[in-house]
Amino acid sequence: MSTDHNFSVVGKSLPRSDARIKAVGAAQYADDIFLPGMLYGKLLRSPVAHALIKSIDTSAAEALPGVKCIITGQNIPKIKYGNWRLVPESQDEFALAIDKVRFIGDEVAAVAALDKDSAEEAIRLIKVEYEELPGAYSVEESLADGGPVIHDEYKQDIPNISLDRKIEYGELDKVFAEADLILDDHFTVHAVSHAYMEPCACVAEYDHDGRLTIWTSTQAPYFVQCLLASTMEMRENDIRVIKPFVGGGFGGKMEMRPWEFCAAFIARKIGRPVKFTLTREEELSTGRRRHPMNIHSKVAFSKDGMLLGKEFNVHLDGGAYNSMGPTACFLCGNFGAMLYNYPNYRYYGAHVYTNKPPAGAMRGFGAPQALFVAETQMNVAAEKLGIDPVDIRLMNAMESGDEIPGVATISSCGFKESLVKVAEMTDWREKRKNLKPGQGLGLGCYSFISGGVFNWFNTRYNFTRAEVRAFDDGTVHLMTMASDIGQGCDTVLRQILAEELGLQITDIRLTAADTAVTPQADLGTWGSRVTLMAGNAVRKAAQEIKEELFKMVSLKFDLNVIHDLRCGDGKIYPANRPDRAVSFGDAVRMAQRAKRGEPVIGYGSYTPRNKGLVTPAFSFGAQVAECEVDQETGAVEVKYMTTAHDCGTPINPMSVEGQLEGSVHMGLGYALCEQFIMKEGKTLTTTFLDYKIPCAEDMPPGVSVHVDTYEPDGPFGAKEAGEGLVSPTAPAIADAVYAATGYRCMDLPLTPQKILAGMKKI
Amino acid sequence: MSTDHNFSVVGKSLPRSDARIKAVGAAQYADDIFLPGMLYGKLLRSPVAHALIKSIDTSAAEALPGVKCIITGQNIPKIKYGNWRLVPESQDEFALAIDKVRFIGDEVAAVAALDKDSAEEAIRLIKVEYEELPGAYSVEESLADGGPVIHDEYKQDIPNISLDRKIEYGELDKVFAEADLILDDHFTVHAVSHAYMEPCACVAEYDHDGRLTIWTSTQAPYFVQCLLASTMEMRENDIRVIKPFVGGGFGGKMEMRPWEFCAAFIARKIGRPVKFTLTREEELSTGRRRHPMNIHSKVAFSKDGMLLGKEFNVHLDGGAYNSMGPTACFLCGNFGAMLYNYPNYRYYGAHVYTNKPPAGAMRGFGAPQALFVAETQMNVAAEKLGIDPVDIRLMNAMESGDEIPGVATISSCGFKESLVKVAEMTDWREKRKNLKPGQGLGLGCYSFISGGVFNWFNTRYNFTRAEVRAFDDGTVHLMTMASDIGQGCDTVLRQILAEELGLQITDIRLTAADTAVTPQADLGTWGSRVTLMAGNAVRKAAQEIKEELFKMVSLKFDLNVIHDLRCGDGKIYPANRPDRAVSFGDAVRMAQRAKRGEPVIGYGSYTPRNKGLVTPAFSFGAQVAECEVDQETGAVEVKYMTTAHDCGTPINPMSVEGQLEGSVHMGLGYALCEQFIMKEGKTLTTTFLDYKIPCAEDMPPGVSVHVDTYEPDGPFGAKEAGEGLVSPTAPAIADAVYAATGYRCMDLPLTPQKILAGMKKI
Repeated sequence: MSTDHNFSVVGKSLPRSDARIKAVGAAQYADDIFLPGMLYGKLLRSPVAHALIKSIDTSAAEALPGVKCIITGQNIPKIKYGNWRLVPESQDEFALAIDKVRFIGDEVAAVAALDKDSAEEAIRLIKVEYEELPGAYSVEESLADGGPVIHDEYKQDIPNISLDRKIEYGELDKVFAEADLILDDHFTVHAVSHAYMEPCACVAEYDHDGRLTIWTSTQAPYFVQCLLASTMEMRENDIRVIKPFVGGGFGGKMEMRPWEFCAAFIARKIGRPVKFTLTREEELSTGRRRHPMNIHSKVAFSKDGMLLGKEFNVHLDGGAYNSMGPTACFLCGNFGAMLYNYPNYRYYGAHVYTNKPPAGAMRGFGAPQALFVAETQMNVAAEKLGIDPVDIRLMNAMESGDEIPGVATISSCGFKESLVKVAEMTDWREKRKNLKPGQGLGLGCYSFISGGVFNWFNTRYNFTRAEVRAFDDGTVHLMTMASDIGQGCDTVLRQILAEELGLQITDIRLTAADTAVTPQADLGTWGSRVTLMAGNAVRKAAQEIKEELFKMVSLKFDLNVIHDLRCGDGKIYPANRPDRAVSFGDAVRMAQRAKRGEPVIGYGSYTPRNKGLVTPAFSFGAQVAECEVDQETGAVEVKYMTTAHDCGTPINPMSVEGQLEGSVHMGLGYALCEQFIMKEGKTLTTTFLDYKIPCAEDMPPGVSVHVDTYEPDGPFGAKEAGEGLVSPTAPAIADAVYAATGYRCMDLPLTPQKILAGMKKI
Repeated sequence: MSTDHNFSVVGKSLPRSDARIKAVGAAQYADDIFLPGMLYGKLLRSPVAHALIKSIDTSAAEALPGVKCIITGQNIPKIKYGNWRLVPESQDEFALAIDKVRFIGDEVAAVAALDKDSAEEAIRLIKVEYEELPGAYSVEESLADGGPVIHDEYKQDIPNISLDRKIEYGELDKVFAEADLILDDHFTVHAVSHAYMEPCACVAEYDHDGRLTIWTSTQAPYFVQCLLASTMEMRENDIRVIKPFVGGGFGGKMEMRPWEFCAAFIARKIGRPVKFTLTREEELSTGRRRHPMNIHSKVAFSKDGMLLGKEFNVHLDGGAYNSMGPTACFLCGNFGAMLYNYPNYRYYGAHVYTNKPPAGAMRGFGAPQALFVAETQMNVAAEKLGIDPVDIRLMNAMESGDEIPGVATISSCGFKESLVKVAEMTDWREKRKNLKPGQGLGLGCYSFISGGVFNWFNTRYNFTRAEVRAFDDGTVHLMTMASDIGQGCDTVLRQILAEELGLQITDIRLTAADTAVTPQADLGTWGSRVTLMAGNAVRKAAQEIKEELFKMVSLKFDLNVIHDLRCGDGKIYPANRPDRAVSFGDAVRMAQRAKRGEPVIGYGSYTPRNKGLVTPAFSFGAQVAECEVDQETGAVEVKYMTTAHDCGTPINPMSVEGQLEGSVHMGLGYALCEQFIMKEGKTLTTTFLDYKIPCAEDMPPGVSVHVDTYEPDGPFGAKEAGEGLVSPTAPAIADAVYAATGYRCMDLPLTPQKILAGMKKI
């Protein structure tokens, strides 16, 4: 990676600040927290997919020694919650089921006991009488006439469609009438698991001052704080949410969840700390997942390959509750018209309830589905029109200055360069001509957002805020509610701050993600928002500090007002007189003197404004998968992955590399093997082995390059990295498999069985 | 207590915010903290009072299983430390002795082991070869010609006088020549222990980010942070000091101490957390203590009882190191001329090294000694001049507007009212006439400072600072580095904040005394500084919030600019239109809207300015002790204590009451029984039983009244309470004993043996 900008800390592959503590095993995750007198909690989950709760008998469980508390839906406030606070009627969950269960795994009761065994035993002793109802286990069953109504108390225009969204611009019907090529395809994409290494866990403590503290494995401490407050009928700021180390989230930990409520509620009720830790089985059988979708995509091209328009109809299989479905429904429509210029576009998305574990936010969030469709159709069109897939993309690719109607104007954009680069690196045109039988080369591309704008959580705060305290010992302390969940923002934000102040990251102490002490508020880690948004806030806070210190240096050297001043190497100096330098610490000392003892503190906030309702900046990239398909077994081996991507300035290239590797892993699983096998709402694949998550040895080698852009709205030119990258892998692999076998996949995952069937071998 | 001010929260005896958690045993003190992999530390202390260290052999100790680290003075940076950073040459301690030990208990080595037993065993196995030197165990021995030089590397004008102080004003020699009555007396006062319930303890952890955290039982986290930084050669802000619950300090926990250094140093050296907890025996035999003093006081009166002047010569027996001796030396001279108007005054104080455990700061700090002398001489003069002790005091008492030359002008002053009140309450004049044999009534008075001004620690920060975050849920969060060590400032500061904002204390979350997150900086809890100084900072921070919220209310109701606005009952409203009220939370919400999402935060700092070099405000009071002395045994029984005192507005009267009871207990022990019996530098009284701390059953009944004043420089009129109150008890009891026996004590403590000798019975 090269850059015209002369950065000192930004752009360097510095080791993560959490690397050592994690490597030695000293990092404390929520489950590592033990408090005196702490109880162990366990949830009773519904064994049936759709039923009325007729009665719950907890007497035998209560009689069990060691059991300290049992709660059911009858004990808790009848308050629904959900992340879409802006649309209160979308909030459709109770922390524990009241009257009705809607999926296998729906939380029915919670136990807290002296030990885990007693808690589990108590769960088994709770007797629940259910009156089973017919279930709907697919979009089709849910929307069929006379199908079961899953949320009967919540009025919907079409039963079980909890919400829908339309986007329309241009004259689509006109172009469909005139187009040279129309592709009209149905796709299905499946649910996959976040498969974060750390199952959800939390410890709640209610203190002697009437306040609640919860340590929880979350991506969004502020959401948990607010939603616990509403469901517990407490004031937000009587609740303190602390994010300990978190072992991955990928969108699966960005809501308040029932165990957080139950831990808090029981802790308050009986005055003892309570811990809940989910098992892997619970995570896989009842956890949030990527939205399965039924997609009908009709796309029109001119004969020379220009995109004329697209009609995009999506039914999201949302499972039993809305969860983050409204956003998925919203974003999928946006992603359907990104990456290329679609002059005419019509989207209809509907979020459909089914009696399955709810889908939620997941890395890429609408993009992997929309782009699997878009990229597959691009590859089909290229073939049908006799244009190289790279060329047809270059013709239609977005570039800087392009507008997505009603959404945004593209600022930095390295998409075309990514395409050119990836074609060069793979020797694309030559290699495609010389494929042996069973070999395939496929292309997939992506664009993604750098954080969202639409304020569905209805925060009253700026989207993010940073406080930077500068000290005369040459250190600074960064306080932010940005949440490192393994993606590395603790390091990245320190790099941004160090760069701005001319310090080293070792000069920076960080306190993050504690709602009681870090600045109000940050919306959390999702939508690839942290580097750009929290980074901008950090930079602004640092700039406040700089302004103050520059005055001191100016005073000390009696500088002319036109002098440019710089921070660098721990010093502050006039740009043209670096000999006249004051150390950072000495400048702070002067500033404190000048304020007669007041500390030197800078504040910065960031909320995207004048950026439409989607995002302030878009990332782009292209990926080529080289595969071999075993002609006998249909097994796909990905031999090599080549990626060129534009994430603006990579603040920490090694960290971006890590994101890319993780994305390839996740994309690989999505494309080829991961899936929830379900039977009437019951998840059968409840271990990683059955679920078929790729192993380390399944990972292909690969190479990637950063395409140089500088995002004017990002800190030091940075934008999204690592979430969008999950999208191109499935369409690239599917395209390679097509090249290798002639089977064009429009129904993920791409299992050997489907390939063999596609090859007419079975 | 009554007041003209119409307070809602201030002046109310609200339960302490820490009452419940302490009552149920859930409060975590430093020794309650357990970290994974934590080691237990133990100190090796010198068994000899003055010696050169010739060699230390740790090999046998190191070979002991379970021993993980041993350090001696040879392993640590050769950096001296001490609280008087303003005068670097006064910093005379190494964390572990290097080359020389100076008292029995001087820290020589430290061990960290897997368990306490191994640490203790290892301490026994360390072999130290000493070359003993002659010791000086009293001021006389120390100042005798040819006495041992205790700090030979540190040049002194007079050997073993580490520092001295002079005060002089008026024409003292002239008034001595003209006075009608001159009292010329020698007094000795002894050392007593702080006897805090919680022995010192700390846990240090060096993290994987190169930073150190220490939880320590301290009154002054900032001091520990700074002095650890200098002795560990770290940057201040790479060190985080957290004050957990602290079980009393009384001045004994306001310095960095060797175990804090050793815990930190070993934690850094070997990468494991380390805990040190002192034993009661260590505390009593080696801990800091009140300065013993030899005092020569010559005081002149006119025949009508007017004080003409005073010459006050004090030798402080400082023990082996300066510790807080410079301040004691400074304050004793100030206290010698307080309470009454001394038109002419000369003070000489000298801090003398001896081979004993160092004396340090202790509740009252120079005042109990100076006032025992002043009050005793006042009682003697009253008798000699035939004036009632109350009357002679009233004639000379300071009052509002009086000036102490070079020190301060007295602002609020309820001294005369206290005297009148205590005389009324005890029926003083009548009761004194009707004493039976063995009965006595005695009077003692005090004045004290409300925090110090002279910046001996050389902080670069304001003396205290508060941050108040206001939330739209109607709560506020107070962040302060003020340290509650049991005296109750967590409650008092919340009362001040609640009063200012018209809230209840339950609306206030408090985060305190954590150098990494609470505002830089606060000097700590000592010198009765917290209520006034931190209270003022809190009030200023709250006023910033009010200003901002008042604008919102004004906007909402389109108020004329001249409207007075009020906070009360959780609302903000125009004073004359309370119906036009906005809830506090709604006003915050409006303010946030007006700032487009910025949080509502107020900051306040306080540093006394234009208040001289001693204190911004003085408390006053008078106390009468009623005693009976057993004529056979000389045993004194205090039958009743009556106190009238002026602490300005008592923020929490119940808390002041608690301070008073504690003061009586401490004053009782100081007057009658507590003492360190020592032999050649060795403390023989190493248990509370031997040391003779008064028990609950020794406590006399009593009554107290607050005399109403309003201190203009204090928050809501408050000033010092609870430290000055420790001074009047000893002179009052001694005066009562004189009345009962004819024995005038000028040599504390007032043991039965001395009384019997004074009565010529032995």
